[in-house]
Amino acid sequence: MSKARIGLLAGDPTGIGPEVAAKLLAEPETRDLAEITLIGDPEVFKDGATIAGVPRETLESFPLIETRIERLPDKCRVSERAGRYCLASLSRAAAAIVSGDIRALLYAPLNKQAMKMAGLAEEDEMHFLASQLSFQGICSEINVGPNLWTTRVTSHVPLRNVADLITEEGVCDAVRLLDGVMRRHRGSQPRIAVAGLNPHAGEGGLLGKEEISVIGPAVRRMRSEGVNASGPYPADTLFIAARRGDFDAVVTMYHDQGQIAMKLMGFEKGVTLHGGLPAPVTTPAHGTAFDIAGKGIANVSPIREAFRLAVGLC
Amino acid sequence: MSKARIGLLAGDPTGIGPEVAAKLLAEPETRDLAEITLIGDPEVFKDGATIAGVPRETLESFPLIETRIERLPDKCRVSERAGRYCLASLSRAAAAIVSGDIRALLYAPLNKQAMKMAGLAEEDEMHFLASQLSFQGICSEINVGPNLWTTRVTSHVPLRNVADLITEEGVCDAVRLLDGVMRRHRGSQPRIAVAGLNPHAGEGGLLGKEEISVIGPAVRRMRSEGVNASGPYPADTLFIAARRGDFDAVVTMYHDQGQIAMKLMGFEKGVTLHGGLPAPVTTPAHGTAFDIAGKGIANVSPIREAFRLAVGLC
Repeated sequence: MSKARIGLLAGDPTGIGPEVAAKLLAEPETRDLAEITLIGDPEVFKDGATIAGVPRETLESFPLIETRIERLPDKCRVSERAGRYCLASLSRAAAAIVSGDIRALLYAPLNKQAMKMAGLAEEDEMHFLASQLSFQGICSEINVGPNLWTTRVTSHVPLRNVADLITEEGVCDAVRLLDGVMRRHRGSQPRIAVAGLNPHAGEGGLLGKEEISVIGPAVRRMRSEGVNASGPYPADTLFIAARRGDFDAVVTMYHDQGQIAMKLMGFEKGVTLHGGLPAPVTTPAHGTAFDIAGKGIANVSPIREAFRLAVGLC
Repeated sequence: MSKARIGLLAGDPTGIGPEVAAKLLAEPETRDLAEITLIGDPEVFKDGATIAGVPRETLESFPLIETRIERLPDKCRVSERAGRYCLASLSRAAAAIVSGDIRALLYAPLNKQAMKMAGLAEEDEMHFLASQLSFQGICSEINVGPNLWTTRVTSHVPLRNVADLITEEGVCDAVRLLDGVMRRHRGSQPRIAVAGLNPHAGEGGLLGKEEISVIGPAVRRMRSEGVNASGPYPADTLFIAARRGDFDAVVTMYHDQGQIAMKLMGFEKGVTLHGGLPAPVTTPAHGTAFDIAGKGIANVSPIREAFRLAVGLC
């Protein structure tokens, strides 16, 4: 079996991306697991190597798809120039996916504000990539923790709009996407718990009807399609059960329902996977970490986990 | 200073209430801290003593306000008779508060379903007590964990109604109530964090406006009244900060926003306080625990914490 061909973006150069990328590239196991192509400006990668204390030659030994940044931006300050560079690099990565030069993409943390300043029109980098890939299907952010995966039916929308956006089709799409990705990754069927929308999962309709009219029917449909889904469960006790190991994955109805739990369970050390795109795209769950960027102390393990997940999905 | 006069209900007799009540009463420190009056049927208390392995005489040494249950119900089965008994005992406790015979009330876990079967018309036992006390003011459930207190602006309502129920007055009421109770308990001003409603606390209005139009103004008003409140903060990172010790208390906007976090942080070992009523009313956060009721193995420490909180608030 040939090695996975993975494209690597060093992330926003104002943050810790280049240094954790350099640390990852310096690990012998990284080369053993994949053929990596760097995407970006060689100066950005070298800057990361310098900060991380990694020999520059290590990075020069990897093939490169070059995109340029006019000059290196200051660390720890949101930069429109850096945002432009990141968008150009993502666009180039999408082209490499389309051409088949890479089979999966790994990127170090980006800065959404910088990309917005640089003209990002889409909701986020996942939707930007989807658009660059001319991909029209369903894609969704999947949070991958050490022992639990989650995805959500609605995401960056006002809470007052959530209930109307919960449809049977939307719940099924989220469950199906998660099930497909996890089967591929694990080689076995995951146990997927579906959260309710309302307190106590609606308490039999007393505290809201969506569990009865929408979420319950969606779960039954998924089961009839052979997916090991169950629920809807009250969200406040569901994560206790998931943490205990009763489930492999949770589908939540809205952003904070999952994020409050995942963050308390240590997801900042986890991985974000853009599920559904034509190629696996992964990134560490943490951000650009301006509080420590440039110091060489950033932890390599989250990007290493993101790398391994990308390899495992190729 | 005279000792706190506290009324004790043994909770629903089908659950672990009577046995943890007996264990608490058997601890020498309990007597040192308060003058306790038992409220309920002596047979219920004695039954708890038998299960807990506590000498019956220990319980007979406490004064009793008697309410009767026709006969002891089976353990671990929801019982309308038990529900009727609990409502009658709560009603008697309210009368003892009004007459000044007790200064605070502590109750072991009740069973909401049993009380509903027995005709409970109010949302829960807190509102039943409020009605028995003819109390018309603001009262609200406060969750007291080892290092963090929370209360919420909305509670048992469908998620689709939440946004419309978040008013500046409602946020201020919740903050003011929590601040008042905590000052009384600690003797110092608590640092209160107020959660946003929307993902990322609305991201400057992009993901919802309530932070700008309602919650922010409420926080500023509370500060102008001398309360150490801040926010609104994104709910998913707020609890990380609170767990780290940045805040003493959190005001959430809706049920699961607080409950997901508190339960993951071990609140089942915590205490529920009915804040705002004319007298402090506390109960352990856990339920009737039908899985272990009657075995004598139930942990006394949550009701002990609830007892100490009631003492501290007298």
